[in-house]
Amino acid sequence: MADFNESVVLDAIRRHADGLSRVELARATGLSAQTVSNITRRLLDQGVAREAGKLNTGSGKPRTLLRVVPASRYALGVHLDPALITTVLVDLLGTVVARRSRRTPRGGDTDRIAAGMAASVSALVAGAGIDAGRVLGLGIAAPGPIDAAAGRVVDPPELPGWGRYPLRDRLSEATGFPALLDKDVTAAVVAERWAGAATDSRNLLFFYFGTGSGMGLVVEDTVLRGASGNAGEVGGLGAGFAVRTVVDEAISLGVLGAEYTVRDPADAQRGLERLAGLAAAGDRPAAGVVDRLAVRIGRGVCAAATLLDADNVVFGGPLWHLLDAPLLATIEPMVASSPFVRPVHPTTVATTTLGQDVAAIGAASLVLDSALSAQPHTLLLG
Amino acid sequence: MADFNESVVLDAIRRHADGLSRVELARATGLSAQTVSNITRRLLDQGVAREAGKLNTGSGKPRTLLRVVPASRYALGVHLDPALITTVLVDLLGTVVARRSRRTPRGGDTDRIAAGMAASVSALVAGAGIDAGRVLGLGIAAPGPIDAAAGRVVDPPELPGWGRYPLRDRLSEATGFPALLDKDVTAAVVAERWAGAATDSRNLLFFYFGTGSGMGLVVEDTVLRGASGNAGEVGGLGAGFAVRTVVDEAISLGVLGAEYTVRDPADAQRGLERLAGLAAAGDRPAAGVVDRLAVRIGRGVCAAATLLDADNVVFGGPLWHLLDAPLLATIEPMVASSPFVRPVHPTTVATTTLGQDVAAIGAASLVLDSALSAQPHTLLLG
Repeated sequence: MADFNESVVLDAIRRHADGLSRVELARATGLSAQTVSNITRRLLDQGVAREAGKLNTGSGKPRTLLRVVPASRYALGVHLDPALITTVLVDLLGTVVARRSRRTPRGGDTDRIAAGMAASVSALVAGAGIDAGRVLGLGIAAPGPIDAAAGRVVDPPELPGWGRYPLRDRLSEATGFPALLDKDVTAAVVAERWAGAATDSRNLLFFYFGTGSGMGLVVEDTVLRGASGNAGEVGGLGAGFAVRTVVDEAISLGVLGAEYTVRDPADAQRGLERLAGLAAAGDRPAAGVVDRLAVRIGRGVCAAATLLDADNVVFGGPLWHLLDAPLLATIEPMVASSPFVRPVHPTTVATTTLGQDVAAIGAASLVLDSALSAQPHTLLLG
Repeated sequence: MADFNESVVLDAIRRHADGLSRVELARATGLSAQTVSNITRRLLDQGVAREAGKLNTGSGKPRTLLRVVPASRYALGVHLDPALITTVLVDLLGTVVARRSRRTPRGGDTDRIAAGMAASVSALVAGAGIDAGRVLGLGIAAPGPIDAAAGRVVDPPELPGWGRYPLRDRLSEATGFPALLDKDVTAAVVAERWAGAATDSRNLLFFYFGTGSGMGLVVEDTVLRGASGNAGEVGGLGAGFAVRTVVDEAISLGVLGAEYTVRDPADAQRGLERLAGLAAAGDRPAAGVVDRLAVRIGRGVCAAATLLDADNVVFGGPLWHLLDAPLLATIEPMVASSPFVRPVHPTTVATTTLGQDVAAIGAASLVLDSALSAQPHTLLLG
């Protein structure tokens, strides 16, 4: 675990893929040259950073550039999605170096499912051939609501039968790694800042589209979790973000046949895939269902972006890729022309670069963020 | 300006009206006994704290209690409301020690109006008979949008003719005090935490009801301002929070006669006062208009409370007192029974204890908060 100034320096280095010199680091962080020099020495000793290349400024001697060593530390992430359990091992930059996934067993024995998740985590580390001592810990992303303090899910509607299962402690005991639990939508926005295109974004919404939907929130460079770790619920912003609602509408309009159901998440996902295919092929009623979904999402995103004065909205989640282009085609102009997204600044709209595994990568990024980011609340100096 | 640990200690003392001993301070802040001892010595020397009374713990010698000295520092606040300009002088605890208000001139010469505000500020300090050297600065609360970095209003729809007026710098130059500008809704939530009943609330929404409406947001003990200082816009959460909308509805239903208009904020306010009187006297159509307003506010509040996982909602603003009881009677059960306010924790609903001047008190509280609160972003140690 890095101290505060060390984290600030490491943050600055990792956010500059081309490397930063000590002089640039002092300028970027506001720390003195001496402090930067001491910290970079420690980071080099720990193997977390390395000297790589010189920057020729034209005057004075060339400056040595510092870069992060991605393979110096790792983190594990597991995403318990209603349809799919995904486990990833990422390096210090959040890049995936190993991955596994399997369908989420329905109902049944939660202890057995958790044991399977733990086994998957352990197998991932063993298979990657890395020193387990370099693994900082295990992050877990789950559908809300959660009890963040206790590390439990709390009767999540999308995970029937899980009750108040102590997922964090069970997986920590079974794997031997320290563990963290957060909501899937929160994990996704943390991923976007560690490993995605938003590493410099200070005011960011991540609209997460999966079996359930929600938003990950970053305001003024801080991930918002709220009173109980359940920030990001969008139910109050308008109805019908859920895949089930969309597929239900398509079935009731006859766009999807009677062979489609929304009984379980995998069924609903199959329906959404078919709906996306029909819409892409020019089926007007199918395109209408997709359009109406886009308008609902656009309204919710505009409301949240205005409330929080965000200037960057990223979209993703396990099912987003199915409808990425047609949804953004409607949402982007809605955001740009919204009377509520004030003309004080433009608002960027984009799809995540991290793909369907964004919440699993986010789970691992929770560990990186906790261990390596500058955390003001750890700052009392006694 | 206090350093970080000093601010943490001062925060702890001011949040305990009965005083805290050094032992309790060490426990509450996590700082060492030696650090607490050094800091309290400095606070005593500066006159910001005093020793007052003993705590008899039953074992060992009685512990000396430390309390804030309210009259050791002051702050000024001015609220540029569309209907009323209010200026306050508050002490270190945010208690109002002097106050002035006047109707906001419509249109006309913004430089002249600003000069009047500055004169009002100066007269308040002179009239209070306090040493100007004890005044930490001047806070300004204005309707959004604002350009927080530049200290300007940005064509606020509720202040026609003000354009991008550099209110912060003009008032600072004219009064000689350092100045801060923030949105009225943000000032209100800062007031609630300094001087109101929410000094211990870490996740708080302030629903502000004035000529315009909006929300002040506190998540995880941090006031949210967003990318440009404009967080708290509620236009996207649903229509019809504005007084103008309510009075318009009452006029169109014949509840209010043709003598009422919404041409300017003072007119609209007069209409709202009459509507409130009619509803209180049992007029059914008037009560219906108020009820529908309550439902709209309730929905918006539920959506925001869920999105941000807030557990405390406070209502106030210049016009809230007119409809306080009938609005809360509808809103409180909506929040309690909302399917979106998840059963993870209860959510408290209350009216501010600070009355109609909450934004002016908030403007002054911005100064106290900036000068005296623990500000993590000032924390680089070089």
